[in-house]
Amino acid sequence: MYKATIAITLRPSILDPEGKTVHRALENLGYDPVEQVRMGKQAELWIDVETEAEARRLAEEACDRLLANPVTENYEISLASVSEEEVREMAQ
Amino acid sequence: MYKATIAITLRPSILDPEGKTVHRALENLGYDPVEQVRMGKQAELWIDVETEAEARRLAEEACDRLLANPVTENYEISLASVSEEEVREMAQ
Repeated sequence: MYKATIAITLRPSILDPEGKTVHRALENLGYDPVEQVRMGKQAELWIDVETEAEARRLAEEACDRLLANPVTENYEISLASVSEEEVREMAQ
Repeated sequence: MYKATIAITLRPSILDPEGKTVHRALENLGYDPVEQVRMGKQAELWIDVETEAEARRLAEEACDRLLANPVTENYEISLASVSEEEVREMAQ
């Protein structure tokens, strides 16, 4: 069992109004050192396959076909092996 | 200059209807090995401070005061040093 953590971010050329709003809110709270904010999504997928290569292939396909918009978004996948026990605890 | 990448996830006990919907959509596309999906947010903050410790303190405060809901969400901050040049490229 693998856990794929997928960070889905807007491509740099795409405007990010949510990030701009958060940036302004942080400025209003006095956090002047914050120069820029970009907001994105994170998806966590628990995938029951034997090898990390299979997990990566499936996660990439899931991104390409469903999770990410190829025109406006980039994605980055990181994989970790997890035990069935961790998954059971998580489900409680 | 530091870049803080903040993963904001729902606590395990909190229902995640968006994750359930994505899970069902992946099943409909035939991705049966996917056992569970959880959706979260990602915030990227570019912070102009001298030390990593300052950057972490500011990012934590931003999470506690604005970005994350302490009742329903967890957050995890990772920091990387970035050059002014990278920031300038990014802004173009």
